[in-house]
Amino acid sequence: MSDIISGAYSRVNDAFKSRLREIFTPQRVSDDEVDILTYAYDATRKEFPPEVVVWAQSAVEVSALMKLACECRVPVYPRGGGTGLTGGALAVQGGVLLSLERMSNMEPVDRKNWQVTAEPGIQLAALKSAVQKEGFFFPPDPSSAKSASLGGCLAECAGGLNCVKYGTTKDWVMKVEAVTPTGDIINLGSKARKSVTGFNLLPLLIGSEGTLAVITKATLRLIPNPTERATFIALFDSVSESANAVQAMLYSGVTPCALEMIDRVSLEAANKHVQDGNMPVVEALLLVETDGRDRETVFDDLRVLMEICRQEGATEIQEAHSDEERLKLWGIRKSLSPAMYAMAPLKTNEDISVPISEYPAMLEKAYQIAKKYDVLTLCFGHVGDGNIHVNFMSHNENDPDVYAAVDELFRAAVAHEGSISGEHGIGITKAPYLHYELGIREQEILREIKNIFDPHHILNPGKLALNEPARRTE
Amino acid sequence: MSDIISGAYSRVNDAFKSRLREIFTPQRVSDDEVDILTYAYDATRKEFPPEVVVWAQSAVEVSALMKLACECRVPVYPRGGGTGLTGGALAVQGGVLLSLERMSNMEPVDRKNWQVTAEPGIQLAALKSAVQKEGFFFPPDPSSAKSASLGGCLAECAGGLNCVKYGTTKDWVMKVEAVTPTGDIINLGSKARKSVTGFNLLPLLIGSEGTLAVITKATLRLIPNPTERATFIALFDSVSESANAVQAMLYSGVTPCALEMIDRVSLEAANKHVQDGNMPVVEALLLVETDGRDRETVFDDLRVLMEICRQEGATEIQEAHSDEERLKLWGIRKSLSPAMYAMAPLKTNEDISVPISEYPAMLEKAYQIAKKYDVLTLCFGHVGDGNIHVNFMSHNENDPDVYAAVDELFRAAVAHEGSISGEHGIGITKAPYLHYELGIREQEILREIKNIFDPHHILNPGKLALNEPARRTE
Repeated sequence: MSDIISGAYSRVNDAFKSRLREIFTPQRVSDDEVDILTYAYDATRKEFPPEVVVWAQSAVEVSALMKLACECRVPVYPRGGGTGLTGGALAVQGGVLLSLERMSNMEPVDRKNWQVTAEPGIQLAALKSAVQKEGFFFPPDPSSAKSASLGGCLAECAGGLNCVKYGTTKDWVMKVEAVTPTGDIINLGSKARKSVTGFNLLPLLIGSEGTLAVITKATLRLIPNPTERATFIALFDSVSESANAVQAMLYSGVTPCALEMIDRVSLEAANKHVQDGNMPVVEALLLVETDGRDRETVFDDLRVLMEICRQEGATEIQEAHSDEERLKLWGIRKSLSPAMYAMAPLKTNEDISVPISEYPAMLEKAYQIAKKYDVLTLCFGHVGDGNIHVNFMSHNENDPDVYAAVDELFRAAVAHEGSISGEHGIGITKAPYLHYELGIREQEILREIKNIFDPHHILNPGKLALNEPARRTE
Repeated sequence: MSDIISGAYSRVNDAFKSRLREIFTPQRVSDDEVDILTYAYDATRKEFPPEVVVWAQSAVEVSALMKLACECRVPVYPRGGGTGLTGGALAVQGGVLLSLERMSNMEPVDRKNWQVTAEPGIQLAALKSAVQKEGFFFPPDPSSAKSASLGGCLAECAGGLNCVKYGTTKDWVMKVEAVTPTGDIINLGSKARKSVTGFNLLPLLIGSEGTLAVITKATLRLIPNPTERATFIALFDSVSESANAVQAMLYSGVTPCALEMIDRVSLEAANKHVQDGNMPVVEALLLVETDGRDRETVFDDLRVLMEICRQEGATEIQEAHSDEERLKLWGIRKSLSPAMYAMAPLKTNEDISVPISEYPAMLEKAYQIAKKYDVLTLCFGHVGDGNIHVNFMSHNENDPDVYAAVDELFRAAVAHEGSISGEHGIGITKAPYLHYELGIREQEILREIKNIFDPHHILNPGKLALNEPARRTE
């Protein structure tokens, strides 16, 4: 990765480690081989071993670490659950792996303000379930929620299954405490619902992939838990018919809380991967859910959407008649990512996003690209918000055609007024393509903001193309 | 204002004016006395005459202006409708007043994506009404909507009457084209609903009070127009009972689209100011509205909220039985700001904001402060989101007690985990108090971001305390 970073970093030596032990106590500093290997991976399956792992327990410790790292020019890589798909948590320059796992406290739900304050290391699913017990709902729901951390969810601005109704993580954060790379503990945002005091800095951090600051506490917005849910699947003989149905449902004014598409190859993969997998194998399947607090409205909404699917040519509609049936449908949807890993050694998992008007054409284009480069493809995803997971795969681990297809896919997404990443972020895997979407001055502004927060480039270097010169799109 | 700016600016001379005429044509450059005076004011009623006024018609012209201004070190003050309450559009250092009024085009509503793209000079009310004719709704609704411009609304992150349900302007912007102070035309955001490519820069501009860039085009998010509305007022014998009712309504799970409080002194002022003003004069009046597309649900929701008000001690409830009655209630609410100007020559109009749990205590504190300093006060506002307009007034135009009261009010808002400004911004009037809410490093980050966009400090200098050193809260 030497081409990524121009400035040289120092290696972690014994003197540095002993200063780490002063900050974290010896128990929470490790250069043990097993720890180094454990923290060398994330969901990209790339390997970048850090030189030392520390487990922080407070913002004050993180601040002391950052000051030490600045002084010694050692890179620091913050990490939550390690479930990121673009390498955001990978220690690409070695240095210190800062695990936030032990900062996992959650304050009692603030029932008067519909808020909860928690530390970054809490598992997303644990947080969601804890607030649910109090009658509240924290919507962000990436497929990785069971192992992802809140901190990772904030750093990546995680999306997931219900963004079509509830938006993404950025829409649910009121306030954060964070430690800057120079060791300052800052507070951004407000617990008040409205504040326009100064620039709106909080959104800068949400989705910045841990390159600007380490979030050490976050106050999240909650809503009353939508206790009622209803779900159906609709089967289509062609992907394009399903795409038309997606548009028609969205234009109806009834907002589903999930609107997912799964194509034929994905269904085959899921059936192979899931025990008792018996999803119908058709060209395209839509998985649609409505939610709310009033049972009648939720089912009325579902019927409206089912009728639209029928009109748009669905060959069959199956409603889930029990929670068990509902969860089974979702289990299959959530198994798609792991299922694909079993299909081929080379798999790219992209998450392009386009305006809804462009969705049918974009989907068609994705299949055309796969055909052109003769690579295996499957598409599924959050089509209700125009966010499509396009996966190109090959049995040849270094197949250049896969990368050529990805390149063309990203150019096409931008040509359709969309984005190269709807929810996975840029990290290292999409860094070469950042300039397809962002102009040269926009890229420079990113770098200049990075320099404000991190003048020595010691926090998560090598990500988001921040250490490379801005590039023009050819 | 020499204490605001450390660096000296050049005056506008004849050579500079002739270069302006090359950019804008002679017809759109004026140093006529009447134009200078017209553009010397905003809603703060402070007077700062610019040296020359230009009317831009394109981003390219704005870009050329900014390059010229950088070269000659002449300040540029962008201006929409001039309705700001904190001096955001005032030419405090003279220089060029850049009117965006003539950039008022709106593209046809993008019905497939529920979006509309418009230029900054369009009147907010005109935009709202144009999209409504197409069946859509753009929620931001400051009281000044009839004269405010879209650009001002974006620059100030305007709030208004329905934020309790619909949030503020920042929640409705997808993408902007903007011209930086160095003359670069940049694009931030995406027409796709999800994009995490690079830092989320768009929110930096929304609410930056025209200090970072001049927005020249914006793509806004729309929703289907909520065609049904229902409204009631509830009268209370004490402000504290009304505050409890506000909390109880919010906790019910039924979300009103407006939840306004008007206190006794405000009601008296409104009755004097409005023709046929005959609002009941009680200690506190709540104005509550529900909206939606289903008439039955909207009225069901209203009944739930009315019942809560009754339980919380409302002495009387009046439902609006016609659109005429409804509009009359709103007319009185919207007349409050102008009405107060007639009450006393010195009037401060603050817009503190606190978490809902703190609202009753904060309101009580505001009255205590008024009593302590023996100044006239009236309170009203968007209490559904904890945003209270506290107005301190005096018949003595230079009454220091009014300013002492304001100072204590801001400190109290921050002590209650709130904000010194929920929607009006900082501008010049709140600049001395910015450090009550923001820490010293947070203030420094604002200044460093300002320097990225505007290294010569030529765009809207003297606002947001950006030209002064960061201050610690005593």
